[in-house]
Amino acid sequence: MERIDGHTLLIGLMAYPIRHSMSPTMHNHAFAKLGLNYAYLAFEIDNEKLEKAVDAIRTLDMRGSNVSMPNKQKILPYLDKLSPASEMTGAVNTIVNDNGVLTGYTTDGTGFMKSLEDEGLNIIGKKMTLAGAGGAGTPIAIQAALDGVAEIAIFNRENDPQWEQAKKNVEIINEKTDCKATLHRLEDQEDFKQAIADCDIYCDATGVGMKPLEDMSLVNDPSWFHKDMIVYDTVYAPRETKLMKVAKEAGVEHVFNGLGMMLEQGAEAFKLWTGEDMPVDYIRELLFKDGE
Amino acid sequence: MERIDGHTLLIGLMAYPIRHSMSPTMHNHAFAKLGLNYAYLAFEIDNEKLEKAVDAIRTLDMRGSNVSMPNKQKILPYLDKLSPASEMTGAVNTIVNDNGVLTGYTTDGTGFMKSLEDEGLNIIGKKMTLAGAGGAGTPIAIQAALDGVAEIAIFNRENDPQWEQAKKNVEIINEKTDCKATLHRLEDQEDFKQAIADCDIYCDATGVGMKPLEDMSLVNDPSWFHKDMIVYDTVYAPRETKLMKVAKEAGVEHVFNGLGMMLEQGAEAFKLWTGEDMPVDYIRELLFKDGE
Repeated sequence: MERIDGHTLLIGLMAYPIRHSMSPTMHNHAFAKLGLNYAYLAFEIDNEKLEKAVDAIRTLDMRGSNVSMPNKQKILPYLDKLSPASEMTGAVNTIVNDNGVLTGYTTDGTGFMKSLEDEGLNIIGKKMTLAGAGGAGTPIAIQAALDGVAEIAIFNRENDPQWEQAKKNVEIINEKTDCKATLHRLEDQEDFKQAIADCDIYCDATGVGMKPLEDMSLVNDPSWFHKDMIVYDTVYAPRETKLMKVAKEAGVEHVFNGLGMMLEQGAEAFKLWTGEDMPVDYIRELLFKDGE
Repeated sequence: MERIDGHTLLIGLMAYPIRHSMSPTMHNHAFAKLGLNYAYLAFEIDNEKLEKAVDAIRTLDMRGSNVSMPNKQKILPYLDKLSPASEMTGAVNTIVNDNGVLTGYTTDGTGFMKSLEDEGLNIIGKKMTLAGAGGAGTPIAIQAALDGVAEIAIFNRENDPQWEQAKKNVEIINEKTDCKATLHRLEDQEDFKQAIADCDIYCDATGVGMKPLEDMSLVNDPSWFHKDMIVYDTVYAPRETKLMKVAKEAGVEHVFNGLGMMLEQGAEAFKLWTGEDMPVDYIRELLFKDGE
């Protein structure tokens, strides 16, 4: 039986490209499972259409929207309020519309932390080495620091546009949290190798390993890893990246792709819109059974 | 299985009030039945929000929208093109978005004519008496005239805001079609009675019989009707109006509520958006089995 009727409220996903996103399938299944009267649809929105797309959220009384590349930073000026994490990261991936008042949140960082918790892993008080300072790396760094990770070594290429963001992330973490953040050049391979050897969790948030860099990895030598660490790639297509293969070759026990983060960032947004807990295990089974 | 994914295109319904409309249920069931990747949602849009709502159709690349009260006339200036019937009626109930070019159509009149055809009834070359010149009465009059109904006697109260529209309808029919239209004052009960006695089909498009005028009818004396005529009420809630009861009491064989018109105006819009025929019998069985 079709569940959409005249009372159904719309939730969007505004990004470009976006048609192949798993988020619509994920959220609509969750709404159906819980009998919640929402429909979640993707819209191809680039920076140019973004301001009008935010108008549409208000005009159509949409309950809210997800926001992804290339709009996560650009959307900030069009919103009425920001969550503390969105202010710190300068990024929004979730908008909640409360009677015309639009609040921006970022659930990527909490999604990352929650996905580790789901695996029974605790990184509070520990050391993280993190590659990347973009749409995934920035919220991960900020949230990990807010939650109590002790040290974060952030690596980025110095000649990359994200180098400035990496600098900002380090500054804001040191200023606003008890975490000790340091900035490192990815070009310095000895430094990178040492930081991985010293850490409890290595996270690659650069997107290397995903198309068009599908067979690449920042780490290619298994001897850089140690077995009792966590290796986490934010990429989930392919399900097993080159980095993950190298880590498994090294005998690392806890190797993860980005599906858990993808699921939990969605669950957090779902909670913000509906007030209900997403049936995460049901959705994982339904959508990701081929991937874990 | 939930059918909405990242490729699903949105179609709207813009009106106020609108939450209790049957259209979302109707269209979504039809999309599901045919495996078409659209979702049809209702949005509470009044005249004030209308221009921005049309912007939203473009910004979100919606495939189109239905439009209902109070926007059917007000929407015309915001569209790029109008169908001939929309130009003649000055009303739009369906918008099609072809790569940013918005064309307005009115499918209410064709829906009315098609619903008679569904019943095996032909009114071409015959005489119609029609009460009302509003959102339903105007497209019915114009389309009936375009299709070849020979004479239409249009009744409206002279002290009603729709009197001017009734005048316009008569003028445009006489100017643009071979049908002979005449304008009559509903206050003149003798004239009204005579016109009903003389006609092949009496159609009430005033909304009398529907809340808040639920127990009322413009005709209360069964002797005004003759058995071999058609009596058609555009109201479908309640399923049997006072008018229909009076007609049945008179032994009229062909007595209809507005469900058939509602269904066929939707099927016509469905065809404009998708290029496919709505599975009308399936939808009628699914939604209206209690009503006929």
